[in-house]
Amino acid sequence: MSTRAPSPETLSRLANAAGKGGVLLPREDDIERYLVEWRGLFRGDTPLVLRPNSVDAVADIVRIANDTETGLVPQGGNTGLVGGQIPNVSGKEVLVSLERMATIRSTDPLNNTMTVDAGCTLQSVQEAAARVDRLFPLSLASEGSCQIGGVLSTNAGGTAVLRYGSMRDLVLGLEAVLPSGEVWNGLTGLRKDNTGYDLTRLFAGAEGTLGIVTGVVLKLFPMPKASETTFASVRDPQAAVELLALLQNASGDLVSTFEIISRSGLELVLRHFDEATDPLFDESDWYVLAEATAGTDGWLRGVLEDTMAKAIASGLVADAVLAESESQRQALWGLRENMSAAQKLEGASIKHDVSVPVSSVPDFLAEAVQAVTGIMPGVRPVPFGHIGDGNIHFNLSQPDGMDPSVFLSEWQAMNDVVHGVVASFGGSISAEHGIGTLKREELTRYKSDTELQAMRAIKRALDPKGIMNPGKLV
Amino acid sequence: MSTRAPSPETLSRLANAAGKGGVLLPREDDIERYLVEWRGLFRGDTPLVLRPNSVDAVADIVRIANDTETGLVPQGGNTGLVGGQIPNVSGKEVLVSLERMATIRSTDPLNNTMTVDAGCTLQSVQEAAARVDRLFPLSLASEGSCQIGGVLSTNAGGTAVLRYGSMRDLVLGLEAVLPSGEVWNGLTGLRKDNTGYDLTRLFAGAEGTLGIVTGVVLKLFPMPKASETTFASVRDPQAAVELLALLQNASGDLVSTFEIISRSGLELVLRHFDEATDPLFDESDWYVLAEATAGTDGWLRGVLEDTMAKAIASGLVADAVLAESESQRQALWGLRENMSAAQKLEGASIKHDVSVPVSSVPDFLAEAVQAVTGIMPGVRPVPFGHIGDGNIHFNLSQPDGMDPSVFLSEWQAMNDVVHGVVASFGGSISAEHGIGTLKREELTRYKSDTELQAMRAIKRALDPKGIMNPGKLV
Repeated sequence: MSTRAPSPETLSRLANAAGKGGVLLPREDDIERYLVEWRGLFRGDTPLVLRPNSVDAVADIVRIANDTETGLVPQGGNTGLVGGQIPNVSGKEVLVSLERMATIRSTDPLNNTMTVDAGCTLQSVQEAAARVDRLFPLSLASEGSCQIGGVLSTNAGGTAVLRYGSMRDLVLGLEAVLPSGEVWNGLTGLRKDNTGYDLTRLFAGAEGTLGIVTGVVLKLFPMPKASETTFASVRDPQAAVELLALLQNASGDLVSTFEIISRSGLELVLRHFDEATDPLFDESDWYVLAEATAGTDGWLRGVLEDTMAKAIASGLVADAVLAESESQRQALWGLRENMSAAQKLEGASIKHDVSVPVSSVPDFLAEAVQAVTGIMPGVRPVPFGHIGDGNIHFNLSQPDGMDPSVFLSEWQAMNDVVHGVVASFGGSISAEHGIGTLKREELTRYKSDTELQAMRAIKRALDPKGIMNPGKLV
Repeated sequence: MSTRAPSPETLSRLANAAGKGGVLLPREDDIERYLVEWRGLFRGDTPLVLRPNSVDAVADIVRIANDTETGLVPQGGNTGLVGGQIPNVSGKEVLVSLERMATIRSTDPLNNTMTVDAGCTLQSVQEAAARVDRLFPLSLASEGSCQIGGVLSTNAGGTAVLRYGSMRDLVLGLEAVLPSGEVWNGLTGLRKDNTGYDLTRLFAGAEGTLGIVTGVVLKLFPMPKASETTFASVRDPQAAVELLALLQNASGDLVSTFEIISRSGLELVLRHFDEATDPLFDESDWYVLAEATAGTDGWLRGVLEDTMAKAIASGLVADAVLAESESQRQALWGLRENMSAAQKLEGASIKHDVSVPVSSVPDFLAEAVQAVTGIMPGVRPVPFGHIGDGNIHFNLSQPDGMDPSVFLSEWQAMNDVVHGVVASFGGSISAEHGIGTLKREELTRYKSDTELQAMRAIKRALDPKGIMNPGKLV
């Protein structure tokens, strides 16, 4: 499975297939934004950027690429964090942007579904759902620019996974161009269909290695009518996990967000953002931001107040506030959402996007903090994230005064240590960001040969020439 | 991909691998219950029934089968409805029952997961969850005998799919013996893990054609604390669909069951079951049985009462009762649950397990009824089922006085007509029962070649010798 550099004739055929307005050339057009990942961590090269505006055009492109063994890199909003959307540096691979396919094809409120082009932004989808009084619950920092095809192909998660699942759980059907160039129309919108292997969910998280997704049927939900947000200081991470169970049981599984924040992280936000204030009087090592939503008004707040009072009485929680207004809610969320930005202002950071069983998070945190401070005294762990899903962004800020480049040269060593602890809990080295090029090599150390071989066999079966997103994931 | 009849030496090796107490022989033991589907519709033959009691024993068996190109048929509780669990009549295939692997391996309430052997019955799993105050929501008529491995491999649905999803949505990890004989340990219990193709969900619904599932990590949920059940006469199927949206929006997506029943079906139950009574004073062509559950007491009944009152005022609903007690609830459920049994007492029936988008159910029902009565005047459609999932059991009772065998000889012709209507709505010819041997031939008419080829490529990639459940599904 190795692709060739496309000949001038192949490039010309591909450009024709993309149609008028669908071609950008390296020396004639500004294609920088397709080739550089937004943080500048990944940079690639391509002989051609194609922007087809129909499924047929995508199919023509893939058929030509298959004939000529040309590698294709599908790209959505270019917001991915592991390099999956960036062509490699050889400059052999043709980039296919779905950005011109951005139509909401249809909305079916009585089936609670919406059928959309892969190039629709997540935000445009959320808004289209809201117009028919429905919720599309996926929510991410990059929702204004990330596209549904990319969100599907990376099985994106975000802040409401606890209640609604990640993208794989939110899709009911797909349209995709397979590596052969054939169009698979699986846009059924059926809630039950037991007629063979689930290709839709196989494509979710496949990072563009099995074909190009062109259309998606999304699940919609009733729009919540009540929402309550609390910020609480917890005794320790174990108390956070126990508080989650209390809230889930008391509300009937209506907790949509449950995030952990360390004092170290909160202090960075308080230091770098003028508008940020500590919501609680006494300091604590650990905090939780939790939100629950309900379809009916009038009872949810009472349930949260009672549960938090019980949690205080039993010592799990030291203190807690409930948002009294939307502006208070936004202020509480800001403490969580500005965490990454605050860390950036504090100097260099080494990041981990890991998961373990929810019940193992407390032990994982203790062992991982000990492990990283053991090899680098002064390193500042700033763990935070979706503890309700067992997904911790175990980020490390550089020691005060250390040269950032010296700190960053320890990236791999730190990864090895943290991922070793993750593995000892049966965890994942990429909970929500995917593998891309960043973790492809590392994946071979943490996945069993049996599983890797099964994945590679599937890849070879569907893409025998290896034209789809070469060098990514598998 | 064609398997061989195992030699005496191969049979002896397989028997040794299954270990003491793990072998049943056709002429020495009573193996009828493994070879005949419970309704007697499918009957097969086998030279050997193996009942391994460890993952290692299963792996040894599969390795020998792979070496010798022997077909294997995995079997759970033998409750499937499409023949997937029955060896074919050639008598070449060795049956592997998982029934001796029936241990609840571990329960983790704080992670809301439970890890179980594939041979555990569904009911034993429900009970183990309840012991830690958690719900495992999958519920089926055969829950006392069906096993988790079979439930997973058929992606079973049941009465709570609307709220909790089908088996594919309820599993977080798998342990399976692949066709190579290698054990894949994917029992992670992680709620987020974006590290490659989702093999777990690929196995869900694969009907034993990709390997033998030996262990499963199941998702658990908070135990609901309040439940309300209503039985209502609706204006027509369109009103049923609109009532569902009203109830989902008013409750905040807490409707767990939403079933449609026709007057024709209700009358069969009233005729054949002495304890059955019509809950409503006036007759109606269509009824709905709906249930909602909540984690908190005190408000759900009010929401249901208000919503049903609004539905009556707007003409969607003519009349409705809410269950006042558990015994009333059971009586209402009995009207739905005795439908199949009542139909059996009424003579021969021809069945369809189909789905269409929820919003298309009304048009589907109208067209399908017209189509079947068009080719057989006097045939009695008794459509009922999970309208909330778009899944209708479109069953036909024989015309009064017709010879049952004459009626049943029209099975394929009726299937053709009904499935043709289903296809025109983009529906599925098997919403929850699967393909097995019953619908394998028919599947090739309703699935696109593109999708079938992709499925077959995956099958060949993981099982190049075709030893796993030959002749089923693909």
